[in-house]
Amino acid sequence: MKIDINSDMGEGFGPYRLCDDEALMKVVSSANIACGFHAGDPDTMARMVRLAKANGVAIGAHPGLPDRLGFGRRDLPFSADELRQQMLYQLGALTAIAKAERVPVAHISFHAAMGNMVNRDPALADVMMDAIRAVDSNLIVFAMPDSTIAHAAARAGLKSLLLFLADRAYDAQGKLVARGLPGAVIKEEEKLRGRVRQFLKTGTVTTIEGETLGVPARSILVHSDTPGSLELARIVRSEIESAGATIVPAAQIVE
Amino acid sequence: MKIDINSDMGEGFGPYRLCDDEALMKVVSSANIACGFHAGDPDTMARMVRLAKANGVAIGAHPGLPDRLGFGRRDLPFSADELRQQMLYQLGALTAIAKAERVPVAHISFHAAMGNMVNRDPALADVMMDAIRAVDSNLIVFAMPDSTIAHAAARAGLKSLLLFLADRAYDAQGKLVARGLPGAVIKEEEKLRGRVRQFLKTGTVTTIEGETLGVPARSILVHSDTPGSLELARIVRSEIESAGATIVPAAQIVE
Amino acid sequence: MKIDINSDMGEGFGPYRLCDDEALMKVVSSANIACGFHAGDPDTMARMVRLAKANGVAIGAHPGLPDRLGFGRRDLPFSADELRQQMLYQLGALTAIAKAERVPVAHISFHAAMGNMVNRDPALADVMMDAIRAVDSNLIVFAMPDSTIAHAAARAGLKSLLLFLADRAYDAQGKLVARGLPGAVIKEEEKLRGRVRQFLKTGTVTTIEGETLGVPARSILVHSDTPGSLELARIVRSEIESAGATIVPAAQIVE
Amino acid sequence: MKIDINSDMGEGFGPYRLCDDEALMKVVSSANIACGFHAGDPDTMARMVRLAKANGVAIGAHPGLPDRLGFGRRDLPFSADELRQQMLYQLGALTAIAKAERVPVAHISFHAAMGNMVNRDPALADVMMDAIRAVDSNLIVFAMPDSTIAHAAARAGLKSLLLFLADRAYDAQGKLVARGLPGAVIKEEEKLRGRVRQFLKTGTVTTIEGETLGVPARSILVHSDTPGSLELARIVRSEIESAGATIVPAAQIVE
Repeated sequence: MKIDINSDMGEGFGPYRLCDDEALMKVVSSANIACGFHAGDPDTMARMVRLAKANGVAIGAHPGLPDRLGFGRRDLPFSADELRQQMLYQLGALTAIAKAERVPVAHISFHAAMGNMVNRDPALADVMMDAIRAVDSNLIVFAMPDSTIAHAAARAGLKSLLLFLADRAYDAQGKLVARGLPGAVIKEEEKLRGRVRQFLKTGTVTTIEGETLGVPARSILVHSDTPGSLELARIVRSEIESAGATIVPAAQIVE
Repeated sequence: MKIDINSDMGEGFGPYRLCDDEALMKVVSSANIACGFHAGDPDTMARMVRLAKANGVAIGAHPGLPDRLGFGRRDLPFSADELRQQMLYQLGALTAIAKAERVPVAHISFHAAMGNMVNRDPALADVMMDAIRAVDSNLIVFAMPDSTIAHAAARAGLKSLLLFLADRAYDAQGKLVARGLPGAVIKEEEKLRGRVRQFLKTGTVTTIEGETLGVPARSILVHSDTPGSLELARIVRSEIESAGATIVPAAQIVE
Repeated sequence: MKIDINSDMGEGFGPYRLCDDEALMKVVSSANIACGFHAGDPDTMARMVRLAKANGVAIGAHPGLPDRLGFGRRDLPFSADELRQQMLYQLGALTAIAKAERVPVAHISFHAAMGNMVNRDPALADVMMDAIRAVDSNLIVFAMPDSTIAHAAARAGLKSLLLFLADRAYDAQGKLVARGLPGAVIKEEEKLRGRVRQFLKTGTVTTIEGETLGVPARSILVHSDTPGSLELARIVRSEIESAGATIVPAAQIVE
Repeated sequence: MKIDINSDMGEGFGPYRLCDDEALMKVVSSANIACGFHAGDPDTMARMVRLAKANGVAIGAHPGLPDRLGFGRRDLPFSADELRQQMLYQLGALTAIAKAERVPVAHISFHAAMGNMVNRDPALADVMMDAIRAVDSNLIVFAMPDSTIAHAAARAGLKSLLLFLADRAYDAQGKLVARGLPGAVIKEEEKLRGRVRQFLKTGTVTTIEGETLGVPARSILVHSDTPGSLELARIVRSEIESAGATIVPAAQIVE
């Protein structure tokens, strides 16, 4: 079995760092690189591309809203066309920086509020997918299973890679339990290892209500902006290796 | 004879405009589009691309320093690699926005201080040209005749289109007379018409010292950010048409 | 009778200008100076302060949301405390720049979306007024008659100056007719002169429904960011002078 | 003997932090608060003011160049008047935020490149000091002994508090040894403790050449943006307490 591990990278800015990108790049197989709107800057982006190349990690664009102060986490009142141009701008910026390093951009993964806004609006999702296809019809769209983005990617004829969040509780509908609620974030190492093992062996997760839910994902998203995220990523990686699965970037999974 | 008219476009930002882009787009054959660093934003860029497409105007990237307050006119202490990534970022951003409109980016023209810094430093110019070639080896580099940028483009195997500034005085070395000096900017309509006619007929300009100087240019740059720039552009266009030359974008000249 | 004319000033940024501040400063008695968030920058602010001083014009802070691209016109999801700190930051910034020119800040006038957000939320309005009073209890708050801001200023013990918008239609409730609707903006010179005369003579306005409505205002706000705004301001000024009223800043009216 | 400990605080931005401000605020007696140009934002500034108030720490403005990406560490080509307005803007912004919390701004300490530019240019230093005095003639200027800033403060009739950097090597002229050079930064705890003790007991430092140099300082600056800075600050504090000196803010020293 082939599985991908992805994480958001290069989410610093100037003197700031959100995580140890150098260490995390040794753990993941796909890096979602911030493109200068919610985080990142041209220099940091180039550093990430070079780091990914040196570690055999595939790269993707991680576009967000132009809201550095809010880290792209706040919904902002942009029109569909404004969001489209913002996404294209960031995707193109990374593509050129990467191309000069002879590295292709393999995928795209929306950040926070931009992703939430697209996931709530099928018409907007179609606008975004059409734009992505126009730029590069081979780009793989990272999405939650059964999400608006996943369906829009399919409508547009784009490949997608479905995600599993090992450290977040799911409800019976397959939605993530909101962060504020009790039990929403799984922090205990053994519990986390158990979830990864269950997912790898049976393709399921036990919901917060205690039921077994199918999760048709092929990539595990590990957060990079929380304390202990590097350790979490290493745990995920070691469980995948123990299970005998192969850790490969998206392109080797979705072909 | 084929000749190009180019101008810097989309140099507004949010509510601000520097020129009447709609009107100017009807006069030029090549638009150098600001890419969001010294001016411009994703929305304005998309608007320019659509406007250029509707008017049959070729587009180019017009990258500048990340200095909105100074409009990219101040030298800033960036390293060669920082400038390279900044240029790539902007070039890529426009490329993706344009690609989604099915418009190719045909050329690149450096803005103000970024251009001056590159023109003063052959090693930096080589860094920039290598990066441009890696992204798109068909991009045409706009440059002054005999400039560092023109020579570096040639070294990199990139095509370049050489520029003539009809409204600026030249000295005996073929350099522009600095703006502050008397006679540096030609504003009288008849004088301007005469310079365009002389350039078109003989490929020369009369220097501020009164000598005749060869100007091997194939594109006339008309400023967009000065009062009367639209009228200037129309004068240039009417003189070219009167001379029986054909106004075409760069790609039809340098092939 | 004493009456004030106020306008938003210094709403440019770097190379950009929204209006002819130099000319407008000769017409108004109060200048609401943009403070660097939705528009303006330290240099422009200092230029406005010096210009106001030279013309005997009183100055006020014109704080807006931190949204240069949207010119502070979009509602953004900030908490009451965030808005409070943003307002204080801008008010303080202008106060120091003005103090170094030996000019006092006389009043405060909220810009666009920041003003709308405060006017929709009495609790937020109280937060803002308490903060203003803490900084300078003599500051005069510019507000529409019977507005949330006007009432909150009164609760906080702050003086306020009530505004009349000569070029905007009012409805029977004393609200401005939304810009998009027919007849919302009065552009005909004679109609505008008539409205100013009626307001000065009887303190009323004729609503869009044709009824007579009392407008207990003592300052006329003239827009600076629309075509023809300078001419509008001059018309308002000439009508006030013709009516024999004295044009003075807010402090000479509300004392 | 009374001595102050000061550190740069609130140098984060949005989601980013450069140091553990909460912990450091328990160690220092004066906090130099970033004012939103090189770092900081209105929210962070208010948080710092409240934290300082709760810990009995005096606050000062820490203005820097408008260069977030470069963290205010690069010289930028601004005129003396531009720098003056930038400094005033930031000083005023903090003053208003602090005033609303009923906290006075006690001092001012220039950040990085802004400080270096002022220290290299006595005429600029006079411009800055005149502006500071106009805003608040009681503000205490933090400066290195015998520096351009210290002398300009004296010329302007402003009080200054002179600084000692315990973890940086001095040369025979009393200048700091440049960071890149061997021995420039003292990291060994015992060596550091020894330097603090020597400074407190004899008012001297041993230069990198081995000579004894008088240091007429009354405040120790501890860095906040380097690894281990919190521990360094605690070491400095414990040595001061062991020496029987009293740790107090600037105002209780320079009166």
